[in-house]
Amino acid sequence: MKVVKFGGSSLSDASQLKKVLDIVKSDDTRQIIVVSAPGKRNKDDIKVTDALIKYYRNYINHQETTENQKWIIERYKNIIDDLKLPQTLLEEIKLNIANLSSLPIEQNDYLYDSFLSEGENSNAKIIAEFFKRNGLDASYVHPKEAGLIVSSEPSNARILPSSYDKIENLATRDEILVIPGFFGVTKDDQICTFSRGGSDITGAILAAGIKAESYENFTDVDGIFAAHPGIIKNPESISELTYREMRELAYAGFSVLHDEALIPAYRGKIPLVIKNTNNPSHPGTRIVLERENNQSPVVGISGDKGFVSINISKYLMNREIGFGKKLLQILEDLNISWEHMPTGIDDLSIVLRERELTPIKEQEIITRLTRELEVDTVSIEHHLSIIMIVGENMKNHIGVTAKATQSLSNHNINLSMISQGSSEVSVLFVIKTQEEKKAIKALYQTFFNKH
Amino acid sequence: MKVVKFGGSSLSDASQLKKVLDIVKSDDTRQIIVVSAPGKRNKDDIKVTDALIKYYRNYINHQETTENQKWIIERYKNIIDDLKLPQTLLEEIKLNIANLSSLPIEQNDYLYDSFLSEGENSNAKIIAEFFKRNGLDASYVHPKEAGLIVSSEPSNARILPSSYDKIENLATRDEILVIPGFFGVTKDDQICTFSRGGSDITGAILAAGIKAESYENFTDVDGIFAAHPGIIKNPESISELTYREMRELAYAGFSVLHDEALIPAYRGKIPLVIKNTNNPSHPGTRIVLERENNQSPVVGISGDKGFVSINISKYLMNREIGFGKKLLQILEDLNISWEHMPTGIDDLSIVLRERELTPIKEQEIITRLTRELEVDTVSIEHHLSIIMIVGENMKNHIGVTAKATQSLSNHNINLSMISQGSSEVSVLFVIKTQEEKKAIKALYQTFFNKH
Repeated sequence: MKVVKFGGSSLSDASQLKKVLDIVKSDDTRQIIVVSAPGKRNKDDIKVTDALIKYYRNYINHQETTENQKWIIERYKNIIDDLKLPQTLLEEIKLNIANLSSLPIEQNDYLYDSFLSEGENSNAKIIAEFFKRNGLDASYVHPKEAGLIVSSEPSNARILPSSYDKIENLATRDEILVIPGFFGVTKDDQICTFSRGGSDITGAILAAGIKAESYENFTDVDGIFAAHPGIIKNPESISELTYREMRELAYAGFSVLHDEALIPAYRGKIPLVIKNTNNPSHPGTRIVLERENNQSPVVGISGDKGFVSINISKYLMNREIGFGKKLLQILEDLNISWEHMPTGIDDLSIVLRERELTPIKEQEIITRLTRELEVDTVSIEHHLSIIMIVGENMKNHIGVTAKATQSLSNHNINLSMISQGSSEVSVLFVIKTQEEKKAIKALYQTFFNKH
Repeated sequence: MKVVKFGGSSLSDASQLKKVLDIVKSDDTRQIIVVSAPGKRNKDDIKVTDALIKYYRNYINHQETTENQKWIIERYKNIIDDLKLPQTLLEEIKLNIANLSSLPIEQNDYLYDSFLSEGENSNAKIIAEFFKRNGLDASYVHPKEAGLIVSSEPSNARILPSSYDKIENLATRDEILVIPGFFGVTKDDQICTFSRGGSDITGAILAAGIKAESYENFTDVDGIFAAHPGIIKNPESISELTYREMRELAYAGFSVLHDEALIPAYRGKIPLVIKNTNNPSHPGTRIVLERENNQSPVVGISGDKGFVSINISKYLMNREIGFGKKLLQILEDLNISWEHMPTGIDDLSIVLRERELTPIKEQEIITRLTRELEVDTVSIEHHLSIIMIVGENMKNHIGVTAKATQSLSNHNINLSMISQGSSEVSVLFVIKTQEEKKAIKALYQTFFNKH
């Protein structure tokens, strides 16, 4: 049994929904279908969720909401009409959308969540009906019925561990279940949404709950590429990678899925498959806990700009007990979160995201390091990028680091920093941002274009 | 004007002292001479300082000390007789050594320091007299007269900043000053010694105080080698290196000088020259604050065993604010000091010296990391070595890291970790100890035997 989640761009109009139908029909183990709200039909379009946010804002500000309701209902009407679904369904959705503007505004912590959830909820009803009318034994299932009981944290719900028992029962049902993503209900029957990446979370929870054979996540790309297509022309796509590898790639520039959303699937050891609704015959990328050592040591090369390095040196720093901790305390006092701390003997750097600093914080860091830690020198270097070479099979392949540094050296790219953690899932290079593209091209050529 | 310090092996007997005389005579800028107590004359000999420790122990335990006194006096007598110095000098030293056993035991925080200081003190008197009788205008100068006023911390004195004014006056004296190393006097006129490496400290303080043109430190080696002579046959000796480079080399196995002792010289920007009393025509190794970029990028390769790595992974660790600090807090609670913290995205290692751990502490670390930080995996890897490739000119030589990793790769040596801090004075590799010698040989060949 598979849990299959479709993102907003896969559900934006009737033609997309027909693709979804074919995908579900083509594999009868695709039994639990999690759906997002309709996404953009083209670049300039508006997502239904964003339209619901506008509707909510006007409502709480006691402004006119008729236009908001109309636009949203029109979106669903188009789909219903194009798919030739019954008008009774449209009437139900109309009513639900309109009814949002009669919910109490005062002392209602869940108002925002109730508005937003209707995007997914209405879409799930349409899709279930569409499936039924096209020969599938399908039912719409409300998250409450599915067992998605969540904590009482508006817009930031977490699944209650006790929910998994009820979710497990879904596996005993024979028909196809269409479940709206993004929200659950609290013990007090309030609609409560997950955080960003919410539909991915619903799918991951359900997959873990029913112990699915896999969790298929349909998007609009053919899976994950070995390097950014904006830099490398027609990069290889990755057939299989581990959760750890995906995280390492995601860290430096790859953003296919919201990785926090995947924790339940990761913990439940459910393989995740990223596939393309618009190209379903492509095998996509399979993300697993462990994979066999049958691929090249490097699966991908990622890069991200916007890093800064605080470089500190102090003679005999190495002898000073607690130096590192005092340093981290200063950063914590300034509410700065850091990423890496490469250490020499009498020098140490803190690598962090540019957004963590402001000119005032920079000055404060320099002042405090000089005064409290009595450092010899401190300098802050901007415009840095991190390049990651990722691959579980890199372990025991010292050749990878050698090849990578040689490749960068041959292209005259200077390393500000290099760090290979003991996990050996990745090697991380810090370079100047102006050399990022050149570096990714050089490394891609070294590891992927060699044959 | 130079400050010259001679270590114990350079002063162990009359034949060594004759070499010292020649060295001082050969350069009339060698005006301030700091001396240690007589060291070992051969492998099985006892240092005078160690004999003084035994003497002290017997004395405070109210045991017989005649033999202790006799042995120590005999050491000085041999030197005095061999150098044909007057018996009055021996009588003075005899008295001083014997008088130690009439110092009060109770409520005397400085008793140990008083005993130990007599090794250097007596030797300085002998050497001053020897210089005088051999045509030099030399005087013995007690540390109090020299201005070495120190904090009241027995066996761990620190120079008082105000002392430097008086020390500066030494530069105005024309004759050669012979000053015992290792101790100063407190404001209350108590003898108080520095910590380990004490005579080096005296020399460094005096060099900084008189703004010496250089601080020459005479030992029994021809300076610092580019790699350990026990591993590399006849390694190149290094003509010039920076304090930072020396520190980096010292960190992983090179132990020529006690580096904390050198802080005053480092802060005073005094070049330090390490020379060999037994081979004074050899230029030795010059240690400076900055050096010109005229040498090869790598000055030395060092290695040290006895490291352990605690390897931690946790999915989404990278997102967890304060994870690193919590981890360091656990180590601090267990009184464990750490060396390096290479970070991946969802993994992190702590590299530390083996001596910091015990089986009980290891168990405690694993328990607390699992329970408090909820890590996915934690493992402790023993028998690791650190290899350092050191050189200031490495900066902007990305080729160095590439060459080094290639060299290790060619020799099938696997890297547990690699870290190049932003200072770029060194690249640090963590490898298995069983491969340490092979690694040093491979790297030495790569960087020094290429031409």
